[in-house]
Amino acid sequence: MPQYERLALLSGNAHPSLAQAIAAHINRQLGQINVSQFRDGESHVQILDDVRGSDLFLIQPTSPSVNQHLMELLVMIDAAKRASAGRITAVLPYYGYARQEKKTNGREPISAKLVANLLTVAGADRILTMDLSAPAIEGFFDIPVDHLSAIPLLMQHVAALQLENVVVVAPDVGAVQRADQARRLLANRPLAILFKDRPEPDEVEVESMVGEVEGCTVLLVDDLISTGNTLIAAAQMLKARGAQRVIAVATHGVFAERAVDNLAASPIERTIVTDTIPLETGAPHIEVVSIAPMLAEVINRIHYGISVSDLIRSIGDAERQQMAYPSRR
Amino acid sequence: MPQYERLALLSGNAHPSLAQAIAAHINRQLGQINVSQFRDGESHVQILDDVRGSDLFLIQPTSPSVNQHLMELLVMIDAAKRASAGRITAVLPYYGYARQEKKTNGREPISAKLVANLLTVAGADRILTMDLSAPAIEGFFDIPVDHLSAIPLLMQHVAALQLENVVVVAPDVGAVQRADQARRLLANRPLAILFKDRPEPDEVEVESMVGEVEGCTVLLVDDLISTGNTLIAAAQMLKARGAQRVIAVATHGVFAERAVDNLAASPIERTIVTDTIPLETGAPHIEVVSIAPMLAEVINRIHYGISVSDLIRSIGDAERQQMAYPSRR
Amino acid sequence: MPQYERLALLSGNAHPSLAQAIAAHINRQLGQINVSQFRDGESHVQILDDVRGSDLFLIQPTSPSVNQHLMELLVMIDAAKRASAGRITAVLPYYGYARQEKKTNGREPISAKLVANLLTVAGADRILTMDLSAPAIEGFFDIPVDHLSAIPLLMQHVAALQLENVVVVAPDVGAVQRADQARRLLANRPLAILFKDRPEPDEVEVESMVGEVEGCTVLLVDDLISTGNTLIAAAQMLKARGAQRVIAVATHGVFAERAVDNLAASPIERTIVTDTIPLETGAPHIEVVSIAPMLAEVINRIHYGISVSDLIRSIGDAERQQMAYPSRR
Amino acid sequence: MPQYERLALLSGNAHPSLAQAIAAHINRQLGQINVSQFRDGESHVQILDDVRGSDLFLIQPTSPSVNQHLMELLVMIDAAKRASAGRITAVLPYYGYARQEKKTNGREPISAKLVANLLTVAGADRILTMDLSAPAIEGFFDIPVDHLSAIPLLMQHVAALQLENVVVVAPDVGAVQRADQARRLLANRPLAILFKDRPEPDEVEVESMVGEVEGCTVLLVDDLISTGNTLIAAAQMLKARGAQRVIAVATHGVFAERAVDNLAASPIERTIVTDTIPLETGAPHIEVVSIAPMLAEVINRIHYGISVSDLIRSIGDAERQQMAYPSRR
Amino acid sequence: MPQYERLALLSGNAHPSLAQAIAAHINRQLGQINVSQFRDGESHVQILDDVRGSDLFLIQPTSPSVNQHLMELLVMIDAAKRASAGRITAVLPYYGYARQEKKTNGREPISAKLVANLLTVAGADRILTMDLSAPAIEGFFDIPVDHLSAIPLLMQHVAALQLENVVVVAPDVGAVQRADQARRLLANRPLAILFKDRPEPDEVEVESMVGEVEGCTVLLVDDLISTGNTLIAAAQMLKARGAQRVIAVATHGVFAERAVDNLAASPIERTIVTDTIPLETGAPHIEVVSIAPMLAEVINRIHYGISVSDLIRSIGDAERQQMAYPSRR
Amino acid sequence: MPQYERLALLSGNAHPSLAQAIAAHINRQLGQINVSQFRDGESHVQILDDVRGSDLFLIQPTSPSVNQHLMELLVMIDAAKRASAGRITAVLPYYGYARQEKKTNGREPISAKLVANLLTVAGADRILTMDLSAPAIEGFFDIPVDHLSAIPLLMQHVAALQLENVVVVAPDVGAVQRADQARRLLANRPLAILFKDRPEPDEVEVESMVGEVEGCTVLLVDDLISTGNTLIAAAQMLKARGAQRVIAVATHGVFAERAVDNLAASPIERTIVTDTIPLETGAPHIEVVSIAPMLAEVINRIHYGISVSDLIRSIGDAERQQMAYPSRR
Repeated sequence: MPQYERLALLSGNAHPSLAQAIAAHINRQLGQINVSQFRDGESHVQILDDVRGSDLFLIQPTSPSVNQHLMELLVMIDAAKRASAGRITAVLPYYGYARQEKKTNGREPISAKLVANLLTVAGADRILTMDLSAPAIEGFFDIPVDHLSAIPLLMQHVAALQLENVVVVAPDVGAVQRADQARRLLANRPLAILFKDRPEPDEVEVESMVGEVEGCTVLLVDDLISTGNTLIAAAQMLKARGAQRVIAVATHGVFAERAVDNLAASPIERTIVTDTIPLETGAPHIEVVSIAPMLAEVINRIHYGISVSDLIRSIGDAERQQMAYPSRR
Repeated sequence: MPQYERLALLSGNAHPSLAQAIAAHINRQLGQINVSQFRDGESHVQILDDVRGSDLFLIQPTSPSVNQHLMELLVMIDAAKRASAGRITAVLPYYGYARQEKKTNGREPISAKLVANLLTVAGADRILTMDLSAPAIEGFFDIPVDHLSAIPLLMQHVAALQLENVVVVAPDVGAVQRADQARRLLANRPLAILFKDRPEPDEVEVESMVGEVEGCTVLLVDDLISTGNTLIAAAQMLKARGAQRVIAVATHGVFAERAVDNLAASPIERTIVTDTIPLETGAPHIEVVSIAPMLAEVINRIHYGISVSDLIRSIGDAERQQMAYPSRR
Repeated sequence: MPQYERLALLSGNAHPSLAQAIAAHINRQLGQINVSQFRDGESHVQILDDVRGSDLFLIQPTSPSVNQHLMELLVMIDAAKRASAGRITAVLPYYGYARQEKKTNGREPISAKLVANLLTVAGADRILTMDLSAPAIEGFFDIPVDHLSAIPLLMQHVAALQLENVVVVAPDVGAVQRADQARRLLANRPLAILFKDRPEPDEVEVESMVGEVEGCTVLLVDDLISTGNTLIAAAQMLKARGAQRVIAVATHGVFAERAVDNLAASPIERTIVTDTIPLETGAPHIEVVSIAPMLAEVINRIHYGISVSDLIRSIGDAERQQMAYPSRR
Repeated sequence: MPQYERLALLSGNAHPSLAQAIAAHINRQLGQINVSQFRDGESHVQILDDVRGSDLFLIQPTSPSVNQHLMELLVMIDAAKRASAGRITAVLPYYGYARQEKKTNGREPISAKLVANLLTVAGADRILTMDLSAPAIEGFFDIPVDHLSAIPLLMQHVAALQLENVVVVAPDVGAVQRADQARRLLANRPLAILFKDRPEPDEVEVESMVGEVEGCTVLLVDDLISTGNTLIAAAQMLKARGAQRVIAVATHGVFAERAVDNLAASPIERTIVTDTIPLETGAPHIEVVSIAPMLAEVINRIHYGISVSDLIRSIGDAERQQMAYPSRR
Repeated sequence: MPQYERLALLSGNAHPSLAQAIAAHINRQLGQINVSQFRDGESHVQILDDVRGSDLFLIQPTSPSVNQHLMELLVMIDAAKRASAGRITAVLPYYGYARQEKKTNGREPISAKLVANLLTVAGADRILTMDLSAPAIEGFFDIPVDHLSAIPLLMQHVAALQLENVVVVAPDVGAVQRADQARRLLANRPLAILFKDRPEPDEVEVESMVGEVEGCTVLLVDDLISTGNTLIAAAQMLKARGAQRVIAVATHGVFAERAVDNLAASPIERTIVTDTIPLETGAPHIEVVSIAPMLAEVINRIHYGISVSDLIRSIGDAERQQMAYPSRR
Repeated sequence: MPQYERLALLSGNAHPSLAQAIAAHINRQLGQINVSQFRDGESHVQILDDVRGSDLFLIQPTSPSVNQHLMELLVMIDAAKRASAGRITAVLPYYGYARQEKKTNGREPISAKLVANLLTVAGADRILTMDLSAPAIEGFFDIPVDHLSAIPLLMQHVAALQLENVVVVAPDVGAVQRADQARRLLANRPLAILFKDRPEPDEVEVESMVGEVEGCTVLLVDDLISTGNTLIAAAQMLKARGAQRVIAVATHGVFAERAVDNLAASPIERTIVTDTIPLETGAPHIEVVSIAPMLAEVINRIHYGISVSDLIRSIGDAERQQMAYPSRR
């Protein structure tokens, strides 16, 4: 029996179709809410349903335009808290600002932590999110976080493509751990890694690589695709080094600026992402795997107090144990 | 001798020219800071100057686009805190979301409080702001707030126009206290008040009025002008009731949508605002009184630990004592 | 099914008869509690019933002597928290210090916010209160607040009196919004407003007015009556301007000092208040409308997780939508 | 050089003469502040001096009427914080509610902790207090506390009386540690202890004693004297057991109800207290030792950043080391 | 019906046999958890059972090695919080650092408060503990604390021994209140008190005593036994003063260093403690009374929302009322 | 001029020789402090110097035994806070629990965040630390963190060795970013990466590699060396693949269990670490580069309010700009 009797799902303006799909998967209706803007641009929220005492899930990826969607979510949380919701779970399938999780230079913010603090002070009781670019971001919160990975789902999808002679490639040194996780889920296919190099002092930096890709089908794996420029440059070099085909896989399809067109014109044959972020055009070279069923199942489990870790294990994470922390020492 | 040895001024992207003017008034340079956006729309900040231990003022009205400017400010505060600034004062000449300071209907947010919490959790030590639409917003903070009013400055400006036969008019019941404050500063000119009415049940609501304006120069006083529609409708009714001239005065010129054009085409002869918000066009019917000297003086006083209340009294607030709270009981 | 199995009601010393009436309306017993003072004046509390895990409502208006009643309430909350109450709702039908919600002069407290912080740090989980003099006080809290209005109830009572030719008058500029709300609930009766004036510089301030009252029944509307002096002076002027009858209406009858006697001797024919504060004498010119049924119903709804907004709408707030915030822009 | 340039002293209404005396001892003026009550009993504060950036000491024992004085102090702290004081030290020579520092029965408050939380949330940065009845109360705070003892001062005073054949007596088991501290400062005079006893089941409880007092001058030592009834009963029994003279010594003279008169009529020859609490009448049998010089010295040291522990050691606490914690194990 | 559906019990490494005994008493299984150390000494925890939404009790006395056991407990709490436990109760039958509850000298920590803050920030929702050396430590927490006493249980055990001519002795002035509580539970047997004395200045300090023990069976009562040296020295002096037998009783048997052996060689005939701390050897002169049944009953009551105060009263605390706080005034 | 007049340095028991070296570098004395243990194992601290108002640096790496050293540090912070230190900087050259910065499996703690919360709640105002295994840990704090890297210093040391034909090798996928940083500081030497592989399903996992090492001098780079087993296995494989020499470099020499002996017996010719952790034996194959001068310089800069980022740039981090975050997009 759940602790909070009623489950309620509300969507902001960031991704209503995903929220609809989630609701449909658990045979629920999205709740009534008015999320709009005043003429001067201030976000305004009114929850129309009675949510007093309910187990409330606010579904809003903080995808571009990120500041708009984030403030909308914060205002929704404030409204829900003041409307006496029993428990408020902020569902951010895409967590904006995740890549600003450390200071690279002096006097920079750690915006991913700032966002965690904003969500908490607004009144969120829990967070549900996916494939944070740095897993330590989970520790930015003192409230419980359910942090899911779409990588097993994406690799199931890739496995079904029955590609031959696959090499998994990390497009830069920051993506190595994710690429390694992916290749383990693909029957331990080989790994290669791209990195920036400068052969002689004073020369310009070039893309370099360790590993072999000649004659192979390359799977470029990253957490997100923004402009796509890193991936496209990588694909060009991989082709130059003899790769036969290049396929890109990422959880989050941000597709900033002209990314969709640029990818179409690039050597990347196909790009596979999930629907954590709405994709505007039905571009044929972009394949979308829906995470709605997974989120729906997890929301249901959170509501009924059933383990989510078990779910994660059951959907293809057999390899996970091997990556466990104790083995590092 | 100030507690923090160095005073530093930094501006976000909301209103750099105001920040420049403030700096010039106290013979300071604006500090070097990079406030930009990544291609996916995330705000990015890098403070280029050493601000360790400094008395840092971050100048950023949260004017439209409010969510963008607010997040920028929050990220700037986070960067300043992590860069070990000694004290961080967020200077918001215009405080966005101030009008969402109460719930009008059920299940609404109190966004003005949310913003106060966001500024505080980000790391602001103090707030400097102007003419909040509800003065109780100062109490939304537990950190010190210096809350200035531009009304004395604006009324000095109006007095210099030597208008004849002035009536101060509140455009709605929410503006009565501000209009009353204004007319006291204009040698106790008469007051009139507009309000919504519905003569018979089931009829549509119309604008109604108490007080006399026939043959007078009407001064419509409000805290801000957004679309201007309320003021324009008011002006039309005032003209119909015999007002000779209509002049609008407000601290904050938000001018949402086509407000500037609509005001030009309206019976409002002239609109007087301050520069808490940047005004894009040099429209001849809009007069701008700069609050840069006042903000500069206050920043200086905060830095050197000199009373700001005394300043407020010295700039024309002789009447203020009479409005003091104890007189209400 | 309620989240907390048991509902418990406890009363401090401020207003036990109201607490009794509330309990009777929902067929409950007040719980056993000992709220006394040691001989040196320190408040002492012992809760005699087992309240572990219960949904506990502590009923205590912070009416005069306000400091005594407030500390008593804080000590009760502390005792309840340490006795492992499941949820603690502080029920303050009258919220003392509400009029100190802003700084009128420099270096003043914002005591209404201080009180909000004290209640929160003591351990209150929710607040239930009525007709705060400034609605923004709700935003002083980050815990949920149910903020009720007795104005519809009072206006129902006034309507039943079938007064003729009513004008609703705001006794000062701070009361205009409440007076406007009242007149809308009375079929849009006309509005008049009193304010302080000073015809010539250096003359003393006098009471002035916009609007017409000649031959009318005047309804003076305010949130509370303290010494009554403002209302009595207003009534005298209204009579001088030809008002036929003057009736005063307010939610909170503080009646400080000799207010009850002074009102009896004044032109105010009748004073209508609620019982948020205990009225000591059964004075014939003071009429009391009980808010116990409303509070009882709301407490029941909070306990069972039923919307309180709906209740507010159902008790006569049809006009409320028109006052909603979006219409201001 | 002090961290905060200006030292400012402000007094509430609880004990202005003590505040005056403190100021005089360090050649300072008390600052200007208005601490009054509105007619409905709400405390009102306005600080008249500029305190921005100052090192502010608010002197207010929370003596009876404790709730009144405590709220006054909290409102003063709030006003000081909002007036941008640099550092706020609440000086409570007497800390009301100190004896409610634990739960004796179930479902009681721990009011001494509640008070600590209230002072902290109001905005106090530091606490200066004296002879808390339980020293663990210092740990109720997470802000720094300077906790002074008047016992050495009182014992210096007693030593100067050159009494003969002194026995130090604890009036109940809760006072044993303090009595032991006192006798050590009096050249290790003997100790006796009173406690409640019930010789046979079902008989009434009587006062019992261990130790010898026959022919002795008894010094009854406690932290405070409230009604004095415990001490008077003790004195009667001590006389019955042969004590020649009985003198009572305590830091805090609360003197609730008719304590002063009752002590005059009792076998207690003389009562020695400090002036942490104002004593209304100049009763001849009550001797008052002023702690103003000690508080003045400590305030000065706090302002200039000089050790206070050293002061404590220098004023007669040579015995202190022996009582140190490590010796208990 | 409990608020949290499932009750779960987990044990750290400090005292698994006590946890087992508690579980057995309420017919429960201890949950599966892995609490170990990495090779570099860092504690590592993995909870193996699903605890989402459960009412979780973490059983871990912070007995020696205290830092190890405390950190283990904090890490367990963190893991439980992030695993979405519904409510986390830290069960510390022995609370390490309890004797550092005040500053004895300047510039010392108040470590007992530090520990309270650490437990709270880690995420504990409630505390269950026993016989804190200073009861004010309960006030170090703002979360609910159930503070049990084993003294009634120990005195029942002593009463069953049918000792003759008992005198209860406090081994130092800090133990007087506990000794007085004990003797009341033993039909008001007489009291004697040991304290440090120094007959002449410059002589060494010696043990002194008030009260009579000649020919008696002495019961030395304290909250805990660490090295036992204080008790052993006390026993030697008591014997010298004619005591016939000496028995030591304490709740917590810390038995640091060679305490067990030293006690065996001392005049203390028998030492009676509870099993709040595991006792390594089955020493014949140490008698252990188990508090497992009491803790089991209390955990059950907390889970089902039944009063714990009532339990305390029902297990022999008839005398408790007499010690209540109001009688002190 | 520094904000806090006096700089004070105190050392716990973890690494007094490092603290001494730091003090010597800035011509200061370590302050007097007593950090010991009671016989029952509780940590006890007494600060002997007056630290009121000082700028206090507490030097204590939380190296093994980590729980002991961490609790000691927390108790030191508590003592310093209660002794009114002006600002408390916890200096942790080695930050224990840093590798528990994310959940690898379900129901695990994020102990690195727990430690951040413990340090903050104890009262630290700032953190100074080095080479956290995940840089996002800096974001676990809301107080300022100065996070230094010893990699430039170590690479200067390596460069001075004038090794030929160097390849930098990451011993696992988690170390790639650090290895890449190192090779950039060594004139862009080539990179190779080791990772776990499983050639066929059901076979055991083996060490695999991308990149070339034949005939090269391999530099194995990691943040810390615990048991050394990972590095030793790596070295064996590298030798098997033709590496001529293998040298290991890491910031933190934890050297758990028999690591020092095992490294001596391994193909690793030489191991270079810093002295963030005390190294017990003067083993000839372990080379120690002292970070005391760098920490001393940084402490001085923090005290005098001088930029630390500039220092970082000046000590060899010319390459750093290229790794900045914006380049990733």
